Amino acid sequence: MRGFYIGRFQPFHDGHRRMVEEIAEDVDEVVLGIGSAGDSHTTRNPFTAGERVMMVTKAVKDLPVTAYVVPIEDLDRNSVWVSHVQSMSPRFDVAYSNNPLVIRLFEEAGVEVRGSPMFRRDVLEGTELRERMIHGRDWEDLVPPAVANVIEEIDGVERLRRIAETDTDGTEPPSDG
Amino acid sequence: MRGFYIGRFQPFHDGHRRMVEEIAEDVDEVVLGIGSAGDSHTTRNPFTAGERVMMVTKAVKDLPVTAYVVPIEDLDRNSVWVSHVQSMSPRFDVAYSNNPLVIRLFEEAGVEVRGSPMFRRDVLEGTELRERMIHGRDWEDLVPPAVANVIEEIDGVERLRRIAETDTDGTEPPSDG
Amino acid sequence: MRGFYIGRFQPFHDGHRRMVEEIAEDVDEVVLGIGSAGDSHTTRNPFTAGERVMMVTKAVKDLPVTAYVVPIEDLDRNSVWVSHVQSMSPRFDVAYSNNPLVIRLFEEAGVEVRGSPMFRRDVLEGTELRERMIHGRDWEDLVPPAVANVIEEIDGVERLRRIAETDTDGTEPPSDG
Amino acid sequence: MRGFYIGRFQPFHDGHRRMVEEIAEDVDEVVLGIGSAGDSHTTRNPFTAGERVMMVTKAVKDLPVTAYVVPIEDLDRNSVWVSHVQSMSPRFDVAYSNNPLVIRLFEEAGVEVRGSPMFRRDVLEGTELRERMIHGRDWEDLVPPAVANVIEEIDGVERLRRIAETDTDGTEPPSDG
Amino acid sequence: MRGFYIGRFQPFHDGHRRMVEEIAEDVDEVVLGIGSAGDSHTTRNPFTAGERVMMVTKAVKDLPVTAYVVPIEDLDRNSVWVSHVQSMSPRFDVAYSNNPLVIRLFEEAGVEVRGSPMFRRDVLEGTELRERMIHGRDWEDLVPPAVANVIEEIDGVERLRRIAETDTDGTEPPSDG
Amino acid sequence: MRGFYIGRFQPFHDGHRRMVEEIAEDVDEVVLGIGSAGDSHTTRNPFTAGERVMMVTKAVKDLPVTAYVVPIEDLDRNSVWVSHVQSMSPRFDVAYSNNPLVIRLFEEAGVEVRGSPMFRRDVLEGTELRERMIHGRDWEDLVPPAVANVIEEIDGVERLRRIAETDTDGTEPPSDG
Repeated sequence: MRGFYIGRFQPFHDGHRRMVEEIAEDVDEVVLGIGSAGDSHTTRNPFTAGERVMMVTKAVKDLPVTAYVVPIEDLDRNSVWVSHVQSMSPRFDVAYSNNPLVIRLFEEAGVEVRGSPMFRRDVLEGTELRERMIHGRDWEDLVPPAVANVIEEIDGVERLRRIAETDTDGTEPPSDG
Repeated sequence: MRGFYIGRFQPFHDGHRRMVEEIAEDVDEVVLGIGSAGDSHTTRNPFTAGERVMMVTKAVKDLPVTAYVVPIEDLDRNSVWVSHVQSMSPRFDVAYSNNPLVIRLFEEAGVEVRGSPMFRRDVLEGTELRERMIHGRDWEDLVPPAVANVIEEIDGVERLRRIAETDTDGTEPPSDG
Repeated sequence: MRGFYIGRFQPFHDGHRRMVEEIAEDVDEVVLGIGSAGDSHTTRNPFTAGERVMMVTKAVKDLPVTAYVVPIEDLDRNSVWVSHVQSMSPRFDVAYSNNPLVIRLFEEAGVEVRGSPMFRRDVLEGTELRERMIHGRDWEDLVPPAVANVIEEIDGVERLRRIAETDTDGTEPPSDG
Repeated sequence: MRGFYIGRFQPFHDGHRRMVEEIAEDVDEVVLGIGSAGDSHTTRNPFTAGERVMMVTKAVKDLPVTAYVVPIEDLDRNSVWVSHVQSMSPRFDVAYSNNPLVIRLFEEAGVEVRGSPMFRRDVLEGTELRERMIHGRDWEDLVPPAVANVIEEIDGVERLRRIAETDTDGTEPPSDG
Repeated sequence: MRGFYIGRFQPFHDGHRRMVEEIAEDVDEVVLGIGSAGDSHTTRNPFTAGERVMMVTKAVKDLPVTAYVVPIEDLDRNSVWVSHVQSMSPRFDVAYSNNPLVIRLFEEAGVEVRGSPMFRRDVLEGTELRERMIHGRDWEDLVPPAVANVIEEIDGVERLRRIAETDTDGTEPPSDG
Repeated sequence: MRGFYIGRFQPFHDGHRRMVEEIAEDVDEVVLGIGSAGDSHTTRNPFTAGERVMMVTKAVKDLPVTAYVVPIEDLDRNSVWVSHVQSMSPRFDVAYSNNPLVIRLFEEAGVEVRGSPMFRRDVLEGTELRERMIHGRDWEDLVPPAVANVIEEIDGVERLRRIAETDTDGTEPPSDG
C-alpha cells in the first residue's frame, strides 16, 4: 500500500518526521509531496524546492519505508488540486493530513484521508522555527540532524534573516518601493 | 439592447436578484458574468463556477429577459480586464455595476456604466451570508429558493464549514503547515 | 439526468446541432461546453467565446432540453482537464464525445462516456466550413440559421478572410516578422 | 559600464531621481527596470507600465547618462527572478538597490549590488505620495515636473481616487461583492 | 503625434530601419514594441528581449524622432492583445503594420492603422537573415552597423548555430528526447 | 560530487539507463530531472510525471549512486530555464546532456556540461518506442524490467493507442472538432 503526505516543509522538522514514522507503520511506500514548490526566498517559504528535496530525502532515509520525494508547484485552483497532485505523484491509496481544506478536497474526490495526532505542536511548527532562526534562538534540536546540515550548507539562516529585513512582507515581488 | 452584470455570486442572493430585476426593465437580454470563475473551496469563494452557473440560471429563469450566464476566469491584470470580459460575453451595450474599480475600468474603455441603489445592503452581502452559513444562523430567506436548493444539493454549507476550520485564511494553497 | 458535450464550435454547425438533438433524447438538461474559450482571431479559432455563446444558445433554444452554455478556457494540462471541466460545469452524469482523447480522459476519471454516429462528416466539419468561408463558397446551409445571423452580425467572414492572409499560420502571436 | 536599477515607480519621484543621479556618477549607461509591469488600476499600483515608461523616460532625459527604460512583468517566482530581469535588460555590470530581498537575490546569483543613502525617506516614498493624491494634499513638489505633467495628462489622480473608493483593498479582481 | 510599431526584431534589420524612417516623417515620437519578449534561444527567436532592446535603441538613435523601446511579452490571447499592448506602451495615436492579423486586431479595437511598402522583402526578412547566420553567409550588410556590433558582443551567431543543431525544431522545451 | 541529467523519459529506456550507469562512474549522487512534467496523455508525452517518477526510481535503484528523481514543469521561457531547474533540484556540479540547446543554456549560465556517446540510438529513442507500443511491436526488451512493469500496471499501452486514434496530433487541447 502507498500513502501520500504533503507539506511545505519550510523546513522539514521533527513533527513532520514523527508523522512519517507513523505513516510508515501503515504503508510500504510513502510519497512526500513538497508543496508550494515554486516559492522560495520569502519569510514564509525561504527554501527552494530542491533544497527541501535534499532535506526530506536525507531526513527519512533510515525509515523502513520506500519514500518518493516530489516537488509540487501550486496551480492556484482548488478545484483541480487533487488531480494535479495525483498527476505528479505515484498512484497512492490513502492521503495523510490534518489540514481541513486538504481533507475536504481529497474527500470530495473520493480519496481516503487519515489524520494523526500532532506532536508537540507548540514548538514543532514552521512559523515558530523560522522565527527562531531569524532571532538567533535555538532551532537545531527541533529538526532532524540531516536537515540542520542542509540548512547550514546552503547558508539558510543568513538568507532568512536578510529576507526578513525587507520592508514588504515577503509576498510582494522583488521591486523597490 | 443587451446589458452586462458581473459578480462573484458566492452565493447569488436576493440583492443580486433585485439588481437583475431592475436591469430587466432596461434591456432585452442580460449577460450575467460569474467572476473569479477559477476560484472555489475558500471561505471567500466556496462554490465552483459550475455550481454558480446552476444557481444563477435557475434563480433568474422566471424573469422576462433572456439571460446568458457566463463564467469569467480572473486574468489578474486590470488593464486587459474589459477586453477579457468582452471576449467571453455576447456583445453588450451597457454594463451595470456599483463597484468603483469596475466602473472606472469600463469608463476608461469607453463602455457606458449604470449604477443601482443597493437593496438591504446590511444583510444582502456575500460575506454576511457566508458567515451565517458557517455559524449555523438563518440564511435561506436571503437567497432565491432555487439557490438554496442548489446549495443543499451540493452539500455547500458543510463544505464551507470545513474549509473555515483550516489554519490558513483560505487564500493559501492547500499544503499542510 | 444531465449530459455534457464539449466542442470548439468554430462555428457551431448542423452536425453539432444533430448531436445535441440526439443527446436531448437521453437527458433533461445538457451542458454545452465551449472549448478553447480563450482563443480567437486565428484561422482555426476565428470566433471569441462570447460570440460562440451567442451562436450556441440561439441554435439550440427550440430543443426540448434545458441547455447551459459554458465557455471553458484551456489549461494545457491533460491530467487535470476533467477536473477543470467539472468545476466549470453544472454537475453531469454522462459525457458525449467521439474524440478518442476526450473519451480516454473521462474514462480514466470514472465518468461515463457515450459516442454518437457522425452526421455528414464530409462537409459538417469545422475545417471544411472555415475553408468555405475563406474562399467564398457556400456555407450558410450547413449551419443553423441563428448561427449564420450571428456570423453576419459580427462580420465574421471578413474577419476570417483577413486573418487567413497573414504570413504566419495563425498560431503565432501577432507581431510582425 | 552599465548599471541596473529597478522600482515600481508608482509614481517616479524625486527620491528615485536622486538615486539615478548618483548612479550616473558611476556608470555610462543605466537600465531603469519598471517592476510589476503588468499591474495597474490598484491603489498600490495605479499607473500602467506604459504610463510609467513615459514618466521615467522624461524625468531622466537631462541626465548625462544613456538610459534604457524597460517594463518587467512579475514572474511570481523569486528563484528565477534574476534570470528574468537579465533576459529583459541589456547586460549590466552592477545592480543598485536598497531592498534586502533584491540585494539577496542578486548576490546569490553572483551579481554585484550597491546601495545608496535614502533621500528624504519620510515623504519621498510611494505610499506617502499616493495617500497625498487620494486625499488632495500637495504632491507635485515631490516629483520631477515631467512626472506631474504625465499624471495630469492621463488624469491619474482622479483614477487613483476612484479606485480607492472600492470596497475591496485593490488587490481583488474587479468583480462586485 | 505618437506612433506604434511592433516586431519581433530577430534581429532588427535594414527593412525595419527603413520602416522607422518612414514613420519618423509622420510623427514626433514612436514606440517600438519588441514582440514575443519572453522568447529566446530558439532558431526563430534567438535573442533575448534585453539584447533586442540594445539593438533597436542603438539602431534608431540618430533618427529625428523620440523613440521608446518597449519589450512586450506574449499573452497568447488575441482578444486582449491590443489592450495588453496599450498598457505596456505610452499612449499612441496610430499603429504601423503590414501584418493582416495585427491590422485586424487594431481595427476591431478602433485604432487607426497605416501600412507601408516593404523594402527589399526578398532579403530583408528575419528568417532569411537567421538562415544566413546559421550557414555562414553574409548578413552584416543587411542590418544597421549597431546591430551587427551587438550581435558580435553577445556571440549571437554562435548561439544561433548551436541551437540550430538541436534535434527538436526549437519550439520544444529543453529536455532530452 | 553531484550530477544532473534531464529527460522527458517517455518512457525511461535502456539508453537512459546506460547514461545513468556512466554518470554513476563520475559522481556520488545524481539528480534525474523529469522534463515536461505537466504533460501527459499525448502521443509524444503519454505518461504523467508521477508515473515516470515510479519508472525512473525503480529502474535505477540497483545502481551504486544516490538518485533524486525530480519532476520539472516547463516554464516555456528558455532564458530562465537553468534557474528554474536549479531551484527544483538539489545543488549539482555538472550537467549531463547531448542536446545542443540544453548544453548551450547551461554553458551560458556557467554550468559545466558533459556529453556521452549515445547507445544504440536507432531503437533506443522515445519516438521509436512509442511507435512500437502503438503498433503492437516488441518494446519490452528495450526498457528496464521495472519500467515494463509500471507501464503494464497503469495500462499504459492501451492509453497510448487510444490517444493515437484522435484526429488531432495530440498537441491540441481536448475539445471535439
